[in-house]
Amino acid sequence: MSGEIRLIPLRGIPELREGDDLEAEVLRAAARVGGFEDGDVLVVAQKVVSKVEGQVVALDEVEASDRARELAADLDPRRTEVILREAKRIVRARAPLVITETRHGFVCASAGVDSSNAGEPDTVVLLPRDPDASARRLRDRIRAASRIEVGVIVSDSFGRAWRKGTTDVALGVSGLVPLLDLNGRRDSVGYELHATQIAIADEIAGAAELVMGKLDGIPAAIVRGVAINGDGTGADLLMAPDRDLFR
Amino acid sequence: MSGEIRLIPLRGIPELREGDDLEAEVLRAAARVGGFEDGDVLVVAQKVVSKVEGQVVALDEVEASDRARELAADLDPRRTEVILREAKRIVRARAPLVITETRHGFVCASAGVDSSNAGEPDTVVLLPRDPDASARRLRDRIRAASRIEVGVIVSDSFGRAWRKGTTDVALGVSGLVPLLDLNGRRDSVGYELHATQIAIADEIAGAAELVMGKLDGIPAAIVRGVAINGDGTGADLLMAPDRDLFR
Repeated sequence: MSGEIRLIPLRGIPELREGDDLEAEVLRAAARVGGFEDGDVLVVAQKVVSKVEGQVVALDEVEASDRARELAADLDPRRTEVILREAKRIVRARAPLVITETRHGFVCASAGVDSSNAGEPDTVVLLPRDPDASARRLRDRIRAASRIEVGVIVSDSFGRAWRKGTTDVALGVSGLVPLLDLNGRRDSVGYELHATQIAIADEIAGAAELVMGKLDGIPAAIVRGVAINGDGTGADLLMAPDRDLFR
Repeated sequence: MSGEIRLIPLRGIPELREGDDLEAEVLRAAARVGGFEDGDVLVVAQKVVSKVEGQVVALDEVEASDRARELAADLDPRRTEVILREAKRIVRARAPLVITETRHGFVCASAGVDSSNAGEPDTVVLLPRDPDASARRLRDRIRAASRIEVGVIVSDSFGRAWRKGTTDVALGVSGLVPLLDLNGRRDSVGYELHATQIAIADEIAGAAELVMGKLDGIPAAIVRGVAINGDGTGADLLMAPDRDLFR
């Protein structure tokens, strides 16, 4: 056992829109690289999931409020209006940058509302309503089609406090435990590891991003060789507000 | 060109201490998996780098201040004293959790001071003095030994605001540009991507963590197949304090 992990891009998935069969496209793309194997993790970009689920808003149907105009600075205030509707709470704002807490509990810029790659001009893409359910549907469909048990992550690019740039993280999870808990286990010299949890679902999402790429139109990848087990949800990765020093 | 990326653990590196030849051990471990290839990224865990550089403190030589006792809660106040010495500033504290800004500019828990895996009881391991220089030394040595040009990342596990668990990030960088800047480039449907930077060095560090593992004593990995180019430093990933809404 080499212990290697492979990151395999799933090419050839076309631009999809509401009602298209994402699962079928993913299965076809996976077949082109030899198909899924048990224990694979499928990572799918949030945006393609949102599009097939119809989480797209046409900006000409949006009227910007005064608050949205104020926060938008030189950007389209209708987009900011959508952000405000998607946000449960504004965590920080410095126009036009708005850091929000979404209804799901994600803390991220612009409530995850995204303009690029929307597929049509003057539309924005929202986060999936329930990213865990989206992940579960993909997993169930792959099992039904191929009898293969995979983990699925629905990923998105989030900025971070203190560090520049985005890394992809796991919004929705099915078929793997997203936090590897080392509490109480002993390391190689016998020291007991206290309170060490590794966010492996986020590391897997970030790894997959390296082969997906925003400019190449590759919305999914297979991560092969991670030891996954159990089950969990994207919500398992969210810090409880009362434990959070930065909310 | 499949576009795959491989994550290859470097096994068999023994416990190292001050003055040991990390570069030689890495070269030996790499030889066991067929050697480096041009364009590989070598990821090495901060802790082994710090140990060979002598960034280790014996706690019996530390006297805890009143402030350290106060912040330590039920943990060893001498460890907290070391944290306070390593911190340029305390960003948030809820005893015994201390979020600090280090002298390098990293915002992280405990100023990166770590007890586990120190190799000896009652010692703690500090961050490397200059992680970029550590990365550069490894890169230079690999080039000298094999005429192969690799990128090098010195990584550590950092917690995040808002999300549970740690992900590995890049502290020191040599031989690759850590931020992929998509500003002004166009995505597949022609939308101009604004202000999109991907922290690929952090994604690479997190990916490598998936094959390294705190419990397995694997302190290094090769990431093969990332298109790296140019050069940069770990400091390129640090958000300028005046741009940072959470400092």
